[in-house]
Amino acid sequence: MEKVEQSIREFIGETIRTIPDFPKEGIQFKDITTLLQDKRALELTSYMLAQPYRHKNIDYVVGLESRGFLFGTNLAQDLNAGFVPVRKPGKLPAKTLSESYELEYGEDHMEIHEDALFEGAKVIIHDDLIATGGTASAASKLVQRLGGEVIGYSFIIELSFLNGREHLIPNTPVESILIE
Amino acid sequence: MEKVEQSIREFIGETIRTIPDFPKEGIQFKDITTLLQDKRALELTSYMLAQPYRHKNIDYVVGLESRGFLFGTNLAQDLNAGFVPVRKPGKLPAKTLSESYELEYGEDHMEIHEDALFEGAKVIIHDDLIATGGTASAASKLVQRLGGEVIGYSFIIELSFLNGREHLIPNTPVESILIE
Repeated sequence: MEKVEQSIREFIGETIRTIPDFPKEGIQFKDITTLLQDKRALELTSYMLAQPYRHKNIDYVVGLESRGFLFGTNLAQDLNAGFVPVRKPGKLPAKTLSESYELEYGEDHMEIHEDALFEGAKVIIHDDLIATGGTASAASKLVQRLGGEVIGYSFIIELSFLNGREHLIPNTPVESILIE
Repeated sequence: MEKVEQSIREFIGETIRTIPDFPKEGIQFKDITTLLQDKRALELTSYMLAQPYRHKNIDYVVGLESRGFLFGTNLAQDLNAGFVPVRKPGKLPAKTLSESYELEYGEDHMEIHEDALFEGAKVIIHDDLIATGGTASAASKLVQRLGGEVIGYSFIIELSFLNGREHLIPNTPVESILIE
């Protein structure tokens, strides 16, 4: 099975393209629209995201705006869980909690609905990509402030040279389909 | 089956809440986060979105940023299709086509990647909600400019009093789980 999964990872990796200097000079942007376009890659990405967390009794998948919405509900369904969006400020219509994270210059915030999950809920945090880990870390704090338990993280791509894992909750699984 | 589907529609409808005066006074905002939270509603919404388009050989589901991303990839997988995002300006990293649509005051744009789909592709356009139909209409034009064929529209909620259907491609199915 390991060799099969390795082949799947390679196939998925080949469907992702790198766009140089987007959104600004010096950034090599990982463009997953070419993955999404390919129905086989779509199917296999869903499969690989769900693999580590099957039979773990997950209550909610928390997906980060907006590319974490793409596979978030899929993953939630595969795990027989609900889905909770974490969004940029002003997008969620009911009462929210807010958590800040650092940007290169300044800071930004992410929000979650106050009634998004029940106390003790088992939660997976999902996004398409982890870079510095700022938004995933903010999402972790939001989940914990609501009394939820972060069981693990789920990403399609991990940019390991940016050490995003170091900003996540210690001793918590980080599952990335592709590590660069 | 009609009575079953009617029960499913009612169940889904009960999981959606209305937030008054969001994002501004006078707007009754349909909040689907309470639907997403409920794993049964998640499952049944996916099922109902796919129902009208099964076995229609759909090539792509086009989902509109950002709430159209929530069920868009799900729907694509259920239809054995690829997924194509239509996004707000500046979000897509490769070469794009742009199409404007009217707002209450002024206008805005939506973009699609130039290489998002092949000529003659059969496409479904999906969003969580259709109000005035501006963004779905812009998305239709983008698909047509790339040589795609819009086979139908797919929404969770249709606000029929805003007559959004009138702005879509004539004689093309509009499938909404809930019509208000």
